[in-house]
Amino acid sequence: MTLSVLDSTMRDGAQHNKISYSVDDKLGIAEALYSLGIDYIEYGAPAFDDECAEFERRTKIPSSVLVAFGMTARKGIAPAADKGIRRLINCRAETVALVGKADLTQVKSVLGVSSDEYLRNITESVAVITKSGKKVIFDAEHFFDGFAKNPFFALAALKAAEAGGACIITLCDTNGGSLPDTVLAGVSEARASLKAEIGIHTHNDSGLAVANTLQAINAGASHIQGTLLGLGERSGNASLSTLIPLFNRLGKLHTENLKLLTPASRTVAEISNISVPDSAPYIGDAAFTHKAGLHADGVLKAADTFEFIPPESVGNVRRLVLSKESGRHLVKAKLSGIIPEADDPDVFIKIFNALKAREAEGYSYEAAEASFYLMAAKIAGRNVDFFTTVDYSVTDFADATSRAVTTIEVAGQRESASADGLGPVHALDCAMRKCMLRFFPAMDKVSLLDYKVRVIDPKSATGAKVRVSITTTDGKRTWKTLGVSANVIHASFMALEDSYRFALNDDFSNLFA
Amino acid sequence: MTLSVLDSTMRDGAQHNKISYSVDDKLGIAEALYSLGIDYIEYGAPAFDDECAEFERRTKIPSSVLVAFGMTARKGIAPAADKGIRRLINCRAETVALVGKADLTQVKSVLGVSSDEYLRNITESVAVITKSGKKVIFDAEHFFDGFAKNPFFALAALKAAEAGGACIITLCDTNGGSLPDTVLAGVSEARASLKAEIGIHTHNDSGLAVANTLQAINAGASHIQGTLLGLGERSGNASLSTLIPLFNRLGKLHTENLKLLTPASRTVAEISNISVPDSAPYIGDAAFTHKAGLHADGVLKAADTFEFIPPESVGNVRRLVLSKESGRHLVKAKLSGIIPEADDPDVFIKIFNALKAREAEGYSYEAAEASFYLMAAKIAGRNVDFFTTVDYSVTDFADATSRAVTTIEVAGQRESASADGLGPVHALDCAMRKCMLRFFPAMDKVSLLDYKVRVIDPKSATGAKVRVSITTTDGKRTWKTLGVSANVIHASFMALEDSYRFALNDDFSNLFA
Repeated sequence: MTLSVLDSTMRDGAQHNKISYSVDDKLGIAEALYSLGIDYIEYGAPAFDDECAEFERRTKIPSSVLVAFGMTARKGIAPAADKGIRRLINCRAETVALVGKADLTQVKSVLGVSSDEYLRNITESVAVITKSGKKVIFDAEHFFDGFAKNPFFALAALKAAEAGGACIITLCDTNGGSLPDTVLAGVSEARASLKAEIGIHTHNDSGLAVANTLQAINAGASHIQGTLLGLGERSGNASLSTLIPLFNRLGKLHTENLKLLTPASRTVAEISNISVPDSAPYIGDAAFTHKAGLHADGVLKAADTFEFIPPESVGNVRRLVLSKESGRHLVKAKLSGIIPEADDPDVFIKIFNALKAREAEGYSYEAAEASFYLMAAKIAGRNVDFFTTVDYSVTDFADATSRAVTTIEVAGQRESASADGLGPVHALDCAMRKCMLRFFPAMDKVSLLDYKVRVIDPKSATGAKVRVSITTTDGKRTWKTLGVSANVIHASFMALEDSYRFALNDDFSNLFA
Repeated sequence: MTLSVLDSTMRDGAQHNKISYSVDDKLGIAEALYSLGIDYIEYGAPAFDDECAEFERRTKIPSSVLVAFGMTARKGIAPAADKGIRRLINCRAETVALVGKADLTQVKSVLGVSSDEYLRNITESVAVITKSGKKVIFDAEHFFDGFAKNPFFALAALKAAEAGGACIITLCDTNGGSLPDTVLAGVSEARASLKAEIGIHTHNDSGLAVANTLQAINAGASHIQGTLLGLGERSGNASLSTLIPLFNRLGKLHTENLKLLTPASRTVAEISNISVPDSAPYIGDAAFTHKAGLHADGVLKAADTFEFIPPESVGNVRRLVLSKESGRHLVKAKLSGIIPEADDPDVFIKIFNALKAREAEGYSYEAAEASFYLMAAKIAGRNVDFFTTVDYSVTDFADATSRAVTTIEVAGQRESASADGLGPVHALDCAMRKCMLRFFPAMDKVSLLDYKVRVIDPKSATGAKVRVSITTTDGKRTWKTLGVSANVIHASFMALEDSYRFALNDDFSNLFA
């Protein structure tokens, strides 16, 4: 048995707190999902969202993969005459996901129609669409709650959709309160009552969206709905990035694209303007990160001690954290071959103690290893400075412009520059580059990729200490540096200086390539 | 049957990427956990962490609740002579969690000892501690993997601990790869083979930590280990904040403290210097947030449509999101009674269109409702400005100081001020307050609580647009404002201005109290 997977990032996922997608966003997300081999890509509800038409026109995803979402005909309107259903029939997608209620209480209290009338509406709404030549996936909203209260009606709703020609009937745990046992019972009963393929659609309000999906598969479901990153209203939908490796492990999904899981997830996160949570299974930065010295040792001896699948199989990488917590052994391993002077125990202990002292001040080299290597090289006696900052200042004006003035000294020669920028850090970066280009033409290739600010002690608001981290590239290498200060501009400047120094240091030319 | 719950935030949770706890942090976390009625609070490994002694001395948590963590005796050392075990015997905690391996491959490859020797070590290590009068919880590391490969040895390890007098034997899914079926089989077998209480300790690498814990309870486990926020190495440990409401729902835990779940979780998050993820079940800001207009309507008609438990029961609140996505109905409801002018459809549509336009520019009023009300009041024709900013500038110097100069005008009168600050926003805030105090003495009571910067378009690094949000209080009310600009200082200044204006506006004196 194989499974079919529907991603609803652009429809149910867009209900996530703080998410809003433009057409361009949707085009990019669809590409990422398609590259991953997702069978069905739900892109929105054309009847409610005018931008769907533009997406349909511009996307290069085959119509056989696209799914348009909509609702059964409105109360008192014949399905063939319902504007929403007409729009679904005329959309580019070959498949329509049509939602209807499987909970009689809801039908009566929210819609105010009789059960017979409602069941007829389901059948006719589905039939009008299937007769137009499109496939229909019927999403039975509130199925599990409805099944608990009135199993007869809940199953009748499914059968009504099947009678209309729906090829997949999806059972929805709409409010996320179902437990695996409930899911097992409901799916088993539906499986026994229907010929159509059974789908499952879960929410994570009880932290069980993935487990409930697994349980549904055990009970005979073969169509899976979710969102790649688990985005969705409230606590989100079942996360496909967690489910896909599980399906693969169960031998139920043959995706040769498993290695694309992490990059595709990060693309969707970037378009969604969110970060993949560090601890997200498989795809998070921390998913294969080992911190405790003992664990790091263990995983180096036998990877399966603390990893049940290889990180590469899902396109992620193993990380050994650079921190005092990770212990001397790992810090030594990090320095080995890069700072050979640290083989001397006296030098090493100086570096390790400096790491501890800096961490106590709020530095965190876990995500800024370039700054760690600069610090270590300096303690080892190397000259890593290349330039001295004689002075800098930056002024921000009420018209939203910023102007920086910087002066550096290289081998006794001074250079000053002034530059305007879109903000104070941009202005400082521009001015510093002007100064440095006189001495170091290679700086031309170096550019900033990302800039992050983290308040270390949020309790004191604008007077709090902040940690700034900067990601830089020279086209070949990508490195991260940091600065810590109560003044965000000062912290940013420290991170900028480290970034330039790392770029200029030939000793590090093979690091982070 | 009741369950006993052990929280390991300060031990296993401290292995989380980017987490590091001081003794003061641990004292605060222990208080929060104790308030929640957690049965066992694991505070660290005294043999490896010298700071445990200080924690033991300073904490007010009863010794009966405290758990010290440690390992069986080192290879070739008699347990009674092992320094680590001596330290456990002499610690303040009445309970010791002792870890040993239940996977023979691990014993042989990582430790390099024979199975007989290792089993004897387990029994003797446990016995030395129980004879000293302390309770022992034996944590059987790698139990499920070990049980799959060599069930005889895995069970023998458990029995060895029981023979030593361990009162709880915890089965650990150390690398987080077990599926619920595996857990069911392993726990059932252990339950049948032992008299001791069975515990479960799961990791979330497969997204199944909560489900596996639930399955273990179904199979007879009654001791639960996890961390309140799910913190832990890689993808984290089982989240107790997700499990506790589940236990309560199953009738297995009688916590009168359920209402403290959200506040206690937020306290631990604050001390850990992380945010509770918006989508965390029960405790997240989005856990009971409804965005889609239809869902918001539904939940207002019948809460259980999209909520399976009342948010108040876990100390959280329902939120209806202010966004164009949430639809006109909800935006109208938000304005109702606060901006009565918006009852006029012409005024309302102007406000709604402004909301849409601002959202397209990167504004997000979901977490800055005070700025929304100011905008709406202005469109409704009210004077909400109170002061005009004539000019401002702020300069940051190489010595990490910042100096701001601001000029405001109130009723034709100008006031200028200059102030130094720990950073540019701090300096601007200080200068603006000096200006305003002349006209508005009540500003004396207003202070900033939190300051956040979010890069809206991270791709363009230092030139990207940022959204700044500021949280302000006057002792009675707490409100949030925002500013958006490519210049972080300009965005901050906009958020500061809104913050002051909200404070000065008597129309809003009952909002956010």
